[in-house]
Amino acid sequence: MIGSHLDTQPTGGKFDGAFGVLTGLEIVRYLNDHGIETDHPLEVVNWTNEEGCRFQPSSLGAEVFAGNVPLQEGLAREDLDGKRLGDELRAINYLGQAPVTGRKAKAYIEAHIEQGPMLEETKCPVGIVDGSMGINAFEVILTGQEAHTGTTPTGRRRDALLAASKIAIAVNELANQYEPNGRATVAHMRITPNVRSVVASRVALTSDCRHTSQEALDGMTAKLKTVFEREAAAGKLDMESRVYWSVPAQRFDPLCVSALTGAAKSLGLKFPMMSSGAGHDAIPVSMVVPTAMLFVPSKDGLSHNEAEYTSPEQLAVGCEVMLGAALTLASAA
Amino acid sequence: MIGSHLDTQPTGGKFDGAFGVLTGLEIVRYLNDHGIETDHPLEVVNWTNEEGCRFQPSSLGAEVFAGNVPLQEGLAREDLDGKRLGDELRAINYLGQAPVTGRKAKAYIEAHIEQGPMLEETKCPVGIVDGSMGINAFEVILTGQEAHTGTTPTGRRRDALLAASKIAIAVNELANQYEPNGRATVAHMRITPNVRSVVASRVALTSDCRHTSQEALDGMTAKLKTVFEREAAAGKLDMESRVYWSVPAQRFDPLCVSALTGAAKSLGLKFPMMSSGAGHDAIPVSMVVPTAMLFVPSKDGLSHNEAEYTSPEQLAVGCEVMLGAALTLASAA
Repeated sequence: MIGSHLDTQPTGGKFDGAFGVLTGLEIVRYLNDHGIETDHPLEVVNWTNEEGCRFQPSSLGAEVFAGNVPLQEGLAREDLDGKRLGDELRAINYLGQAPVTGRKAKAYIEAHIEQGPMLEETKCPVGIVDGSMGINAFEVILTGQEAHTGTTPTGRRRDALLAASKIAIAVNELANQYEPNGRATVAHMRITPNVRSVVASRVALTSDCRHTSQEALDGMTAKLKTVFEREAAAGKLDMESRVYWSVPAQRFDPLCVSALTGAAKSLGLKFPMMSSGAGHDAIPVSMVVPTAMLFVPSKDGLSHNEAEYTSPEQLAVGCEVMLGAALTLASAA
Repeated sequence: MIGSHLDTQPTGGKFDGAFGVLTGLEIVRYLNDHGIETDHPLEVVNWTNEEGCRFQPSSLGAEVFAGNVPLQEGLAREDLDGKRLGDELRAINYLGQAPVTGRKAKAYIEAHIEQGPMLEETKCPVGIVDGSMGINAFEVILTGQEAHTGTTPTGRRRDALLAASKIAIAVNELANQYEPNGRATVAHMRITPNVRSVVASRVALTSDCRHTSQEALDGMTAKLKTVFEREAAAGKLDMESRVYWSVPAQRFDPLCVSALTGAAKSLGLKFPMMSSGAGHDAIPVSMVVPTAMLFVPSKDGLSHNEAEYTSPEQLAVGCEVMLGAALTLASAA
């Protein structure tokens, strides 16, 4: 199986996973054009709802495939307007009849843009992805008290936005400590009342942490919780936190990794071994099918951004590595 | 003139200025009940749009009275739905014919809840307000770059929310330096895209600073600007800032202040001299009519909050001081 996704992103209009799907189609076309028959059949997969923009969670199709989310539960997921995924798929004739779970496969490979700066910085045309970062992502709700900004001395305030700001900075400092294999970010805050002259009484923020090593991730997670508790106490705030997304750090399949490294070597390419920091369909798929991934460079390390770009020449090199790996994995040996 | 406002607040359903208007009515009722005639006529004023929740700026009626905003410009102010203040006043029969500007008055006194904790802490039943804090309030727009939180190392980010958080903390530290006569707060941020897995590319925040001394306010303002520039540069962000609200620090009229202190002393009350940290109708009015204010305690220093409270007994004491001052100011002497 060769796959990725074609759904749109939270921001921007680009399709960061389209390369993976088009690579699969290109490989099949090449095999057909050259009359090449493989021992094992090749399938191209375009997974439903990888970005999770409209229906949560991300990689929902692959999660159902992996048995992590029951099919009926996945189809029942609702968007913000209360529309169900199953109904919306039926409306566009995308609700197929083939079973989703229990499908056997020898191997799964997925190509994707890196979405980071490492390949460009190291001038490598591809990266072989032998695992994925574990993720623990929190929602933290801080509750203080509304007060007039002009009349309330700082010592008398219970300022939720001030504590949220301290958390954002502490999370960034934590990320710096865990570079280059860890990440941590506050990218989202809902501020109440968010009025210029009223001290913020409530902030709901999200803070994620990611690491290639599960042990290091557990350490980061514990430190994050300490940060939330420390800043809530310092700001005399009530605090509640919950994990809204958790993915264990994973190692991909050695044979699939080896098929990709072999193909890259046979093309004389320089490549690093990498861990994926982003979520991908390959991550749930790897729980039930031997899996590995290939990355191609992202200009300026950008993705989820209108300026996201990988040149046709860079994509072609990645496609050739995928072809080589697909031929290896589809052979009887 | 005795006045304040009855319009609703940005948050909560209380009327923090109602005390001032009701005090005026109570004083007139007392004079009528006791057949007391004053040398100068007493007027009770309920100013339009003090809170500025629907139509900007705050204290719009008093600003027109003071000649700071031309009448036609004030009436043309639009709410978020594009409805004009003048049309909306006409619709409820509140658009009167009497001239607003150029009205002569010997004195103006305004009673208000403190909206801060000082009277409660010092167990004083009233505070005499002999001036108001100057205010400089900025909108700061920080522009960085969207990037994937899982794949982008911290050193490669241009994270607008991180810089905004550093600004919020630096503004709070500045406020601590200028206590008890200065204030500074970040209470409002608009974050773009505000998506959990995308580094924030843009934050528009507001930051105000206030001080009883114009010289100290100028110093705070200069330091604030330095903070904005420093954090934007540290975060590799583009930054623009503008002052959206500026009010000079003001001293109220000595005779009006003396009328209030005399009344408080004759009732045997303990009182501090205070500066107002919040905006009030009295501030623009003081530019054209001799003015002073009286504060009564706010429970827990709260206002702009549903829990705002001053007891009937506390309000009655404030009302007695206002009566004494009104009789002094309305006498021929």
